[in-house]
Amino acid sequence: MDNYKDYLKYSKKIYDVYMSMSVLNWDMETHMPKNGNKFRAQQLSTLAKIAYDLSTNDKYGNLLNKLSKDQSLSFDEKRNIFLSNKEYLKKKKYSIDFVERQSLLVSQAFKDWRIAKEKSEFKIFKESLENLIELRKEECELLGYDNHPYDALLDKYEPNLTTKDVDLIFSDVKNQLVPFINKISINNNIDDSFFYQHFDHKKQWDFGIDLLKQMGYDFNSGRQDISAHPFSSHFSPEDARVTTRIDENNLSEMIWSCIHEGGHALYEQGILPENYGTPLGNSISLGIHESQSRLWENHVGRSLPYWKNNFSLLKSYFPKELSDINYELFYDACNNVKSSLIRTNADELTYHLHVLIRYEIEKGLIEDSIQVSDLPSIWNDLYKKYLNIDVPNDSVGVLQDIHWSHGSFGYFPTYTLGSFYAAQFYYQASKEINDLNIKIENGNMKELLNWLRDKIHVHGERYDAKVLCQKITGEELNFRFFMEYAKEKYSNIYKLN
Amino acid sequence: MDNYKDYLKYSKKIYDVYMSMSVLNWDMETHMPKNGNKFRAQQLSTLAKIAYDLSTNDKYGNLLNKLSKDQSLSFDEKRNIFLSNKEYLKKKKYSIDFVERQSLLVSQAFKDWRIAKEKSEFKIFKESLENLIELRKEECELLGYDNHPYDALLDKYEPNLTTKDVDLIFSDVKNQLVPFINKISINNNIDDSFFYQHFDHKKQWDFGIDLLKQMGYDFNSGRQDISAHPFSSHFSPEDARVTTRIDENNLSEMIWSCIHEGGHALYEQGILPENYGTPLGNSISLGIHESQSRLWENHVGRSLPYWKNNFSLLKSYFPKELSDINYELFYDACNNVKSSLIRTNADELTYHLHVLIRYEIEKGLIEDSIQVSDLPSIWNDLYKKYLNIDVPNDSVGVLQDIHWSHGSFGYFPTYTLGSFYAAQFYYQASKEINDLNIKIENGNMKELLNWLRDKIHVHGERYDAKVLCQKITGEELNFRFFMEYAKEKYSNIYKLN
Repeated sequence: MDNYKDYLKYSKKIYDVYMSMSVLNWDMETHMPKNGNKFRAQQLSTLAKIAYDLSTNDKYGNLLNKLSKDQSLSFDEKRNIFLSNKEYLKKKKYSIDFVERQSLLVSQAFKDWRIAKEKSEFKIFKESLENLIELRKEECELLGYDNHPYDALLDKYEPNLTTKDVDLIFSDVKNQLVPFINKISINNNIDDSFFYQHFDHKKQWDFGIDLLKQMGYDFNSGRQDISAHPFSSHFSPEDARVTTRIDENNLSEMIWSCIHEGGHALYEQGILPENYGTPLGNSISLGIHESQSRLWENHVGRSLPYWKNNFSLLKSYFPKELSDINYELFYDACNNVKSSLIRTNADELTYHLHVLIRYEIEKGLIEDSIQVSDLPSIWNDLYKKYLNIDVPNDSVGVLQDIHWSHGSFGYFPTYTLGSFYAAQFYYQASKEINDLNIKIENGNMKELLNWLRDKIHVHGERYDAKVLCQKITGEELNFRFFMEYAKEKYSNIYKLN
Repeated sequence: MDNYKDYLKYSKKIYDVYMSMSVLNWDMETHMPKNGNKFRAQQLSTLAKIAYDLSTNDKYGNLLNKLSKDQSLSFDEKRNIFLSNKEYLKKKKYSIDFVERQSLLVSQAFKDWRIAKEKSEFKIFKESLENLIELRKEECELLGYDNHPYDALLDKYEPNLTTKDVDLIFSDVKNQLVPFINKISINNNIDDSFFYQHFDHKKQWDFGIDLLKQMGYDFNSGRQDISAHPFSSHFSPEDARVTTRIDENNLSEMIWSCIHEGGHALYEQGILPENYGTPLGNSISLGIHESQSRLWENHVGRSLPYWKNNFSLLKSYFPKELSDINYELFYDACNNVKSSLIRTNADELTYHLHVLIRYEIEKGLIEDSIQVSDLPSIWNDLYKKYLNIDVPNDSVGVLQDIHWSHGSFGYFPTYTLGSFYAAQFYYQASKEINDLNIKIENGNMKELLNWLRDKIHVHGERYDAKVLCQKITGEELNFRFFMEYAKEKYSNIYKLN
């Protein structure tokens, strides 16, 4: 048991450094004065180097190796050791040379991307992107994979997810979701123009806080701030924060970013503090994390019972602006399905077509069936094909997302995965919680939150995503839950039957 | 030169960790939610351990040792090596056992002190304090000293300051300042009651920001927040922050804490970014730091020209509350000299008697001429002797300051030292800057700030405090500058001549 205690001490030390980096990052995005950037980047890079050295230290590796063979450990202890050892062995595969090249390339790519996006000229970003793709291909070989090199990249964000899995998911999307969206677009006459009046900043902020409290977000273990792009961030289960963005000319921006980030933060607040610093104190994967944010944002926060309850509160903040609106009109407007250029502004159905496009491109780049130089035209063709939309320029086209400039490939599919997990989990919750809709209509979220805590949050990484889904819902991820949810909801809104 | 480059890399790495800790501390005091405390303390302790390990690493020591003998280095490079090596050798004197015992004792002492203060019962704190005194005595022996063991503690905060120096300073205080204060107290009929009306929080905040901007505080390289106790904190010269406290029933709280902390932060903003992570990128000592805050707070911020300029602005925020007041009455009121119980509320003259009392006690405890068990009665006797004031209970008496509970002994004298340095520097600035008073009366602080930048800030630790003072003013620290300032100012206010 002494070895296991040593392991806990070591693992927590590494985690403390990563959590310290999170504090520095959070500050950078929320409060840091303009000029603080240069030294903050340096401090973060020093901490990253320290964390890396600790994580790949041979002493730690030997300890993990020894403990991997220790049959006297409990199930949870074995699980911690298994995952920490997996992480250790993975990190050891990277050479210092690779890590340093990556750091330089990403920093250059980010600079190039910013200028390219500003000038709307893809060719400024082209060379950096080519270098990053080469680096990622090298990484795929270095990490290893069974079938497709892209598997190695998917596994970084969603352990055990394969290209084959994602292909299957998107074939369902293409076969079932795309025709359904087309059906909607013929019948779409929703007017959501009232969202784009002037809505006072302070009142929006207060309403957002009300919504977070109603969800059960604990402000003693978190807080909300303003940032350029909404995000959630945690330094322990007892300090899990959110940010939002308030656009005085677009009410929807704040509302669903609050609920979305609140969903992420509720997951972190539900992790058990006693598991801090070990895999059992971690969220499972990006997909499962996104399932929590999407469940709250869409299944709760864009539902009829939710607005039946909350619309009058919203109207008390904005009586003049919403004088002609009732909760049913509001509900329809916040579920307006419409092809659009920008992924982050997309509705919950067309969103997945944006992801599909990125997935097809990433896979093609990694398997060499697509060349970087062809990207703008491929991008624009795919937007025409799947969303029937013309892309006016690269800035709102192939350059719109920050991810590639950060060197992140294999990340986008987890957004779609998260939504589909959310549908499957929510279906199960509705079965297991009596009158869930009525509870939501009464502003009572407690049972839903407890269900999520109990089924998902408290486990940390105890189970793989696939195993967890099986345990909760009796089967692996199945697209039909999302499709059935979409069909029922939108057939109603758009009177398709 | 390769060795020196290695040194820079190493030194900056250590500094990055300390600056990261500062970010975590800043967040803890300003924004952290209530429950965040436990894991934050753990994260800070992990970073402290990492910083300590890096700072005492033999490889670093060997490098410093080698560079100490390198005659090819420039003056500045030699100075960096000298100070880094001094710091290294000092840190190496502490055993891990000592550091761990200290950490445990301080943590226990802080808990005991909080309860003791709350219940106003010194005996709850007594044992912890005794343990801390024993630890500090051990530290004095471990660090070494020439004459008095307390020298070793002074040197931690004010390099090269000795007990003999401080004795001399306080003998001047006793012989010259005390009789002058007594003379004032007979003639004191100033009415400062208008400070204690209700002053709106938001308006106070805005006025404080105005004052900071006027001083030349750069909000692109800093920011102000609210905290329980005002402090300044820096993560680089390009991110040097301040906090303030706003009491709606006491206007003076915010005003002079803003100016005071602003003075500290201007020092940090004036450090040269290219020296980040080396002694030349550090402030010299606590005393010199305090000289900057006190200079702005008292010599500028409690001066007649300052309020001749700023009173109308203040009055525009609070026309009703200040309707009967003019700038001269305001000036008198903010210079009300009056014996009081609490050090942090004291005026700029009696303040030093509070420090004197703490100094006499600390010295006595370390040289064993005072026993901890006698502290409350000794404290109360000294307050009667120097301030002619009766201490009603331990909470506002011997338990009022946090310093001892943190294990800080040798710190208090730097407050007084700072004030006296401030007087000497300000006298010199007045001689070298044409019409400084008129400039202040016009709200033009630029030349004063540039003078401080040029004479003090840009040098970092290039010179010892004593050498710097000699360079700037032509002589070492001399109490007469403070005494002459006090005599001129207060004789005028109290019409003593």
